Amino acid sequence: MTDVIIPTRPSTPPPPLAEGGLRIVALGGIGEVGRNMTVFEHQGKLLVVDCGVLFPEDNQPGVDLILPDFRAIENRLDDIEAIVLTHGHEDHIGAVPFLLRNRPDLPVVGSRFTLALLAAKCREHRLTPVLVEVSEGQHTQHGPFDCEYFAVNHSIPDAIAVAIRTSAGLVLHTGDIKLDQLPLDGRLTDLAGFHRLGDEGVDLFLVDSTNAEVPGFVTPEREIGPVLDQVIRRATQRVIVACFASHVHRVQQILDVAVKHGRRVALIGRSMVRNMGIAADLGLLQVPAGLFVDIDEAMQLPEDEVLFVSTGSQGEPLSALSRMARGEHRQISIRSGDTVVLASSMIPGNETAVFGVVNGLVRLGAHVVHKGNAKVHVSGHAAAGELLFLYNAVRPSNVMPVHGEWKHLRANAELAISTGVNAQQVVIAEDGVVVDLVDGKARISGRVEVGHVYVDGLSVGDVGESTLSDRLVLGEGGFISITVAVESSTGRAVTPPTISGRGFSDDPKALDQVVPLVEMELSRTEAEGITDTHRIAQAVRRVVGRWVAETYRRRPMIIPTVIPV
Amino acid sequence: MTDVIIPTRPSTPPPPLAEGGLRIVALGGIGEVGRNMTVFEHQGKLLVVDCGVLFPEDNQPGVDLILPDFRAIENRLDDIEAIVLTHGHEDHIGAVPFLLRNRPDLPVVGSRFTLALLAAKCREHRLTPVLVEVSEGQHTQHGPFDCEYFAVNHSIPDAIAVAIRTSAGLVLHTGDIKLDQLPLDGRLTDLAGFHRLGDEGVDLFLVDSTNAEVPGFVTPEREIGPVLDQVIRRATQRVIVACFASHVHRVQQILDVAVKHGRRVALIGRSMVRNMGIAADLGLLQVPAGLFVDIDEAMQLPEDEVLFVSTGSQGEPLSALSRMARGEHRQISIRSGDTVVLASSMIPGNETAVFGVVNGLVRLGAHVVHKGNAKVHVSGHAAAGELLFLYNAVRPSNVMPVHGEWKHLRANAELAISTGVNAQQVVIAEDGVVVDLVDGKARISGRVEVGHVYVDGLSVGDVGESTLSDRLVLGEGGFISITVAVESSTGRAVTPPTISGRGFSDDPKALDQVVPLVEMELSRTEAEGITDTHRIAQAVRRVVGRWVAETYRRRPMIIPTVIPV
Repeated sequence: MTDVIIPTRPSTPPPPLAEGGLRIVALGGIGEVGRNMTVFEHQGKLLVVDCGVLFPEDNQPGVDLILPDFRAIENRLDDIEAIVLTHGHEDHIGAVPFLLRNRPDLPVVGSRFTLALLAAKCREHRLTPVLVEVSEGQHTQHGPFDCEYFAVNHSIPDAIAVAIRTSAGLVLHTGDIKLDQLPLDGRLTDLAGFHRLGDEGVDLFLVDSTNAEVPGFVTPEREIGPVLDQVIRRATQRVIVACFASHVHRVQQILDVAVKHGRRVALIGRSMVRNMGIAADLGLLQVPAGLFVDIDEAMQLPEDEVLFVSTGSQGEPLSALSRMARGEHRQISIRSGDTVVLASSMIPGNETAVFGVVNGLVRLGAHVVHKGNAKVHVSGHAAAGELLFLYNAVRPSNVMPVHGEWKHLRANAELAISTGVNAQQVVIAEDGVVVDLVDGKARISGRVEVGHVYVDGLSVGDVGESTLSDRLVLGEGGFISITVAVESSTGRAVTPPTISGRGFSDDPKALDQVVPLVEMELSRTEAEGITDTHRIAQAVRRVVGRWVAETYRRRPMIIPTVIPV
Repeated sequence: MTDVIIPTRPSTPPPPLAEGGLRIVALGGIGEVGRNMTVFEHQGKLLVVDCGVLFPEDNQPGVDLILPDFRAIENRLDDIEAIVLTHGHEDHIGAVPFLLRNRPDLPVVGSRFTLALLAAKCREHRLTPVLVEVSEGQHTQHGPFDCEYFAVNHSIPDAIAVAIRTSAGLVLHTGDIKLDQLPLDGRLTDLAGFHRLGDEGVDLFLVDSTNAEVPGFVTPEREIGPVLDQVIRRATQRVIVACFASHVHRVQQILDVAVKHGRRVALIGRSMVRNMGIAADLGLLQVPAGLFVDIDEAMQLPEDEVLFVSTGSQGEPLSALSRMARGEHRQISIRSGDTVVLASSMIPGNETAVFGVVNGLVRLGAHVVHKGNAKVHVSGHAAAGELLFLYNAVRPSNVMPVHGEWKHLRANAELAISTGVNAQQVVIAEDGVVVDLVDGKARISGRVEVGHVYVDGLSVGDVGESTLSDRLVLGEGGFISITVAVESSTGRAVTPPTISGRGFSDDPKALDQVVPLVEMELSRTEAEGITDTHRIAQAVRRVVGRWVAETYRRRPMIIPTVIPV
């Protein structure tokens, strides 16, 4: 067994890039699934591939989105020649508006559907981006970077891979990719093109790692159609199908089955309505005239003549599907005998929420079909068998696994090595680790700081680790606040202490013992002649903290406020 | 397709139980996975089967444990004849001490290993329970309840099913069960015994639903040994195997492989050390003399002569394994080439935590073997194929699926119906729904209230939905507090307002605009002659809430404190 070399991770910034070299650094997306953003540097100029968002985990409460960390390039925005987008998923385009805020004239390169989704997103941010539309087979030149585009197959139409030629060598970045050999739109991943690049000599290959741990091959998307057909044919009442709002081919299969069984279709969810409108306008989604109805019309139709296509497949609590599962949807009440299909995967971390929705629907009597009991979803990312095809076509000198957590990166590295890539030339470089391609060899040269940049409401970056740490403490134990006014000159309390707790106990008497405790402590501080409000507050915090630990064995935040009057 | 009938769920308490009838109500464990507790009532007396805990989910922050809701029986504790424990897992025995607090003399019936684990738990609660040890084939009589015990196979030794005979009929409760036909200890689930009960006529069959959605059969536990052997044979450095601390047979297989490959074993984790000590004392775990070493000794041994068996397989952040994954364990530093085996399932909800541990270990260079890439775990619960064997042996008149969420209960109900049980006689009765067995028919007769009873620190029940709801708000958005002292007679502010926020922003200037805003509002309330501190506080809350929503689009808790001086 050849072994992956786990490189040591330097903690220092890299030295200046060698003359003629190419520098690569991920500001997001390596060591995590999401916020993909890779920066290429050559001859003093920068090229960015993708600029997406990451969705927060449990230990990042209240956060809406996580952005790539732009600090490494914030003083070099004018050096950026272009952003190339490989496809239109949020984890590849979602942070573009935040970068454009600082450099609105930056050219954004992508395929037609990708740019249409980006333009819609930018409109919400009141931005008008400079768009450069490309399609497979085309080249664009951005400063010292020559870019060539290749068709790839993924779970969204119009995805591309990008080959970047510089004087330092040829780099191929897959973006998100799989090798479905029976794609619904007939648009195959361009393996022949990759082979041609391999003949030319690929110096560095950046490869999607998401499914590197999964053996074999992803089932063709096309096999989902017959399963949906079987489920919907049997249904005698309403059918609701939930899936990702950008999965045009999945929706196409749903629409085809609806037509076949005489059901009209209502789309539910703002992003579903918007994206399918764009897809239909671009000719990517075929919608027979009169198929679509709105929800109100759908509710007037006989139950066996309607089908809803909905968002909410990840158990998002405010989604229409979650509201149906709780029996709280304004228009659609689930009844015994209704059919609900979750034609989607579960994004890790969403399991509890999705199962909650499934249980809620079952409890109301619905038949719930999901990937656990029927083949109603396939992944959009190449499994191990497909990755081997890629490595054998490209025959790269150096490999850099991208898009994935550590376990995915390492599994991908092992696949590369198994096809003959030298283990020394497989570089696992998580976010911020700088890789230099010089004289045909990729080497780790240093590290730049890449942290989490949180979006919470309207503001970017002001919520950081200290705020999150406070939220976690408050979320676990609530707080107890003690407010007292003291005479500035003597430190004598002029009011009885006001005690209140939130998130601590339902028992209204839970804190009754605190008042005399604090009064005693205030008498003590007064007797000792302590007048400094900060010291008085510290003393109060100490006695209350000790009391709550001993009495309840809990750790609420203790917040003393001492007001000098 | 015969369809499960989802019964309507009544909201009213049941009428008095019909003369000679048997009443069944779950105070936990139906509609959820955990805190199993079923109460049987006959001739004015009660029998309790199991009394376990449930572990909290994300929306129950700060909670340590969730207990069954005892309210339905709290006024009838003296009517309880006994509590029968089917096996020693926490979700079946963990809440016993909380019941014994109120009725210390209650006889607790169970098999040897189950009672040994319970006794250890009770010692921590400073309780000395009245134990009645039974084994398969035996009968015990508790008031009007005649109990007969049957061997069943599960992921812990010494599990039993219980048949309860009363004048209302014969009930069989499986507890947790599977039908491993090659059990390591040779103790098969007593299918012949169940068949004999079937011949006698089982009026009501309560059946483990956990794996009812899983087709086929669970792989025998025995097949894990060779996989572990292969993994450990190849290891050239340290090996760490994490598994559940009560899975004696799994640990036995690990020890056997360790012996074979000349490795000595150190146990890590308090519960692992305690449970394996008990198992060894009872002869359930065979430990060759000199095999066990403590951690300090283990650290002195050559790296290829040691194996650690550890808790922490669920990614618990304070466990030894999580600390190793973060590089923070005091003694054991993971190095490139070490092998870590997670010989366990992932309890739903723990996925993110477990993957975090796996990624941390991989990042440090460890080879991580888990159920996703090797057959190092099998479930302890019967899959659909095994449940069919049970239904065909028992041929019950009435069926009540237990132990599971709604999707599991319904799948189990469908299996019962497929073997010929009348759909009308399959009763899905979630927690609190009362089922009466009268004249051989099981019917839902009403509902008692069953809520979540939270243990947080030393206290039981004082943390309720209102506290949790506050914790969720605080955890998402933190708080902003505004404290001001006003002259009682005039409502005039005598100090500038003190503003502070926690969990709101890392920016020290984030709340600078609040002071003048509050001062303006206080001038207004004073001008309007408002002196009531409650009304002043409301006014302050309103302006600050509006400001933060408009400025930040966030919803922190706003806490005004107005002190009259």
